[in-house]
Amino acid sequence: MSLIEKTLSVEKIYDGRIIKVEKQQVELPNGRQTTREVVKHPGAVALLAVRENQVLLIKQFRKAMDEVLIEIPAGKVEAGEERIHTAARELIEETGLEAGKLTLLHEFYVSPGFCDELISLYQAEELTASSEYTADDDEFIELFWLPVSDIESLLQSGQLRDAKTILALQTLLLNYNNSK
Amino acid sequence: MSLIEKTLSVEKIYDGRIIKVEKQQVELPNGRQTTREVVKHPGAVALLAVRENQVLLIKQFRKAMDEVLIEIPAGKVEAGEERIHTAARELIEETGLEAGKLTLLHEFYVSPGFCDELISLYQAEELTASSEYTADDDEFIELFWLPVSDIESLLQSGQLRDAKTILALQTLLLNYNNSK
Repeated sequence: MSLIEKTLSVEKIYDGRIIKVEKQQVELPNGRQTTREVVKHPGAVALLAVRENQVLLIKQFRKAMDEVLIEIPAGKVEAGEERIHTAARELIEETGLEAGKLTLLHEFYVSPGFCDELISLYQAEELTASSEYTADDDEFIELFWLPVSDIESLLQSGQLRDAKTILALQTLLLNYNNSK
Repeated sequence: MSLIEKTLSVEKIYDGRIIKVEKQQVELPNGRQTTREVVKHPGAVALLAVRENQVLLIKQFRKAMDEVLIEIPAGKVEAGEERIHTAARELIEETGLEAGKLTLLHEFYVSPGFCDELISLYQAEELTASSEYTADDDEFIELFWLPVSDIESLLQSGQLRDAKTILALQTLLLNYNNSK
């Protein structure tokens, strides 16, 4: 069975600072037609920064849901930027830390039903204070270090409500379990 | 330090079938102003359906990235619908299975930087063929059962590119490890 949908036409709805919105008319595998709403996003990287059996988390306000969330550091890919460079840049911008080692753990779409945003999750290690860092007074975040031994209870507490953060901390736990 | 951003004004950009798009003018904690693009989404449920040490996966085409993805079953919450009812309904619609037991595992935002979509992830057990099921010929998905013992190698293969699916399978693995 073919699963593919053919694009018949594309209507541009919005071309914003970060996202673009389109309405696509598509032909389903059975020949019928339907409409798909599609949000185009530049993509992002997320960072699992680990030092001495601790992992770096941030608290930040998210306007889309008017809530403060606990997350791992993350940021959008700039036009033409290689994702590993985004990772290094965002880590410095959000935390003041430079990573001696960046390892790709997973790449995933976060909301494939309507949006093409792809996140590349890197583990950042060999962390040192960056000489390039100057605190950006338009970034409002609070940093804290969580012991790896506390991850499991934090996951079970329901306090984590961000998909990439839950996914990243689970990956770390599974890797720790495997290396035991 | 306050992290909160105050809404100054909201411009409605698009009111679609599934999503709404807004441009919000906000005041940052330091008094400066900026613009936030916000996508409003009704939210969704996802299902980790488990039977005899196997987990149910689906392949489906996703128009936003023009790719076939491996995912767990999922679907949008309808207006006024309780999420546990969405879970039961979507499981029947996508797989023909009825769950005797549904357990909430996690609730998470998938893209909090610009979108309020919240996914509730349920584990579905005690699965039986539903008498209400009639195959919907506008749903183009392929189902398959994956042994729990194969999850780890599938996670490491890079073939899984959907956040909720990686998160759900890692939750299952961690729960299996804990019950050993």
